[in-house]
Parts: sequence; structure tokens; C-alpha cells
Amino acid sequence: MNSQSLDLIKNAIHTIPDYPKPGIMFRDVTGILDDAQALTATIDSLVEKYKDQGFTKIVGTEARGFLFGAPLALALGIGFVPVRKPGKLPRDTYAQDYQLEYGTDTLEIHQDALNESDKVLIIDDLLATGGTIDATAKLIRRVGAQATDAAFVISLPDLGGEALLKEQGIKVHTLVSFEGE
Amino acid sequence: MNSQSLDLIKNAIHTIPDYPKPGIMFRDVTGILDDAQALTATIDSLVEKYKDQGFTKIVGTEARGFLFGAPLALALGIGFVPVRKPGKLPRDTYAQDYQLEYGTDTLEIHQDALNESDKVLIIDDLLATGGTIDATAKLIRRVGAQATDAAFVISLPDLGGEALLKEQGIKVHTLVSFEGE
Repeated sequence: MNSQSLDLIKNAIHTIPDYPKPGIMFRDVTGILDDAQALTATIDSLVEKYKDQGFTKIVGTEARGFLFGAPLALALGIGFVPVRKPGKLPRDTYAQDYQLEYGTDTLEIHQDALNESDKVLIIDDLLATGGTIDATAKLIRRVGAQATDAAFVISLPDLGGEALLKEQGIKVHTLVSFEGE
Repeated sequence: MNSQSLDLIKNAIHTIPDYPKPGIMFRDVTGILDDAQALTATIDSLVEKYKDQGFTKIVGTEARGFLFGAPLALALGIGFVPVRKPGKLPRDTYAQDYQLEYGTDTLEIHQDALNESDKVLIIDDLLATGGTIDATAKLIRRVGAQATDAAFVISLPDLGGEALLKEQGIKVHTLVSFEGE
């Protein structure tokens, strides 16, 4: 990605101090979406990285993963598969629990959404602790497909997500990284 | 849209009987998303309908509105603005209640996401009673922008949504209509 495109994307990210609680710098991607140039630069950059590599599906996790995953699927000419919260997918599903700061939550995928011939690229807006993406990769693998790569608009590497996903054999690519938080 | 594209889209819609409760025929759009040809046909058809008409933003409602709205925004070269459930948007928001079968729910939009010069196209996967889209149009108008048009992959006109939105001055376009349910 050239520096002009990167600047477009960086400048469109809003930073909200002390949200959702004191001490957190919240990185808000809605400014990328509502700026057509920044959205186009984001998707073009991901297409450049991932075209002609044999990926057959994009998987995105509810809800912000839909916002970048679906346009990327369209741009790459491959299908998009949603991973959703419980009770949202109407056909037979597999479920995977993951840890929150307090307690657990669950994600689901349609059992027939992928098969053993699929090579999947996971997309989300922001990588923090990596818990939802680790659970998403487990769902993809449970269906028998390959989960080899994950891409994020933003990464907060100090929160451990990059390290966790690499341990799970997933290559991580991010457009913008905020360290020291 | 030619009949071949329409057949691609129709054939990719899954129908799940008795979901989420007995007597309901659930129309599931995830099959359109995971079929690259059907997804491309869907977005191409919406681009053909809405290009060169002066729309400045797409608004989509959490979560399935993100799945078609974000790709359409990219394809039209305009920005995408999400309408979300309470507590999900980090900057200052406006909120709008709407009726459910039992009780009410609330949607929010960022106060600075649109302005009086914006002409907005609302996108969602499926039009049933129209409650969420009516609330979405109210949020767009509260910000001062024009909400003149709404497009859906699927409409169930017997459930009243088309009539409700027309009463509110919104032109409705749908790709596939299922009547008698």
C-alpha cells in the first residue's frame, strides 16, 4: 500500500478516549466506511494482498466483520460466510465458546457453509485480544476447511491477539497498528 | 435485471420452514452471500438501479443490512453509515425506538454521520413489517438528510412493510418478492 492510501485510512479512524471505560482509547472504523476514498483504499489494499492466492471464501464475524468482509468478497469475486451470535443463523450450526473478560460468549457457523476444499481468509475490523477470531478459526476448521490467514484494518498488538493467532498457525496482516495501548 | 441474474439470486435463497417458530417460512440470504455469482448479480443489479442518481451515502441497519449495504457503497463509490443497536456506536448518537411484536427496541446513528446535503439510500436484506427501516429513516431525517429510497433483496409485501414505507414517502425497490405469506 502506498503512503497516500495509508494516510487516507489512518486519518479516517476516529479515536475516542475513555470509551467504553476510563483508560481505553477506542479506535472507531466507522469513519473509514463513511469516506468513500478511505473505504476504497482499504479494500483495494486487501485485494492487492490476497488476490490470486487461492482463497475460496471470506469469513467475517458479527457485526463489524461484515462491514469489511462482504465488500472484500465482492471485490475478490469469492463468497462471504458470516459467523454470528447464537440463534441468528437459521440452518444447522456448529457453536464455539470463547472467553470474555468476565464470563464466556458463543459464536456459530452454518454447518454447510464451507467444506474441506475451502481455503478461508478471516476478516475483521480490529484485532485486540483475538478471542473472537480464535473461535472463528476453530469453527472454520471444525467444518473441515483451512483457516490460514486473517486480516484486520487495525491491530492493537499489545493486547496479545497477534501472538495468539500466530500460535494457532494463522498468518496475520494489518493495515494500521497502534502500539503502546 | 435479466432473468438469468434473477434466477441466480432466487435459487441462492434458502427457505427454512417453521423458523424461528411454527408457521413462518424463513427466507435466508446467507446463500446469496456465499455464492460469488449471486452476490455479484445482486450488487450489480442495485448499482444499475441507483447509479447516477445523486445518492451520497448508503445506510444499513445492524447486522444483515451491513452485508449488502457495505458492498453496494463500495461499488457505487459512496460512503456507508451503520445504524446500530444501543451502546455500539462510540461517538454522540441519536436514538429512535420502534415497536416489536412484544415490546420495543431502539436503533442509533452517529450525530455527525450525515448532514443536510446528504441524499441517502437505505439497504437491508429483507423487508417484512418495515419497523426497523421506518426507524432508520426517522434517524436519517433527524440528522437533516434526505431518506427517499430503500432497497431490499427480498420483500414479503403481505407483512405491510412496503405500504408503511410508502406512507412515509420512501420509494421501495426489491429484487425478489414472496407473496401469500
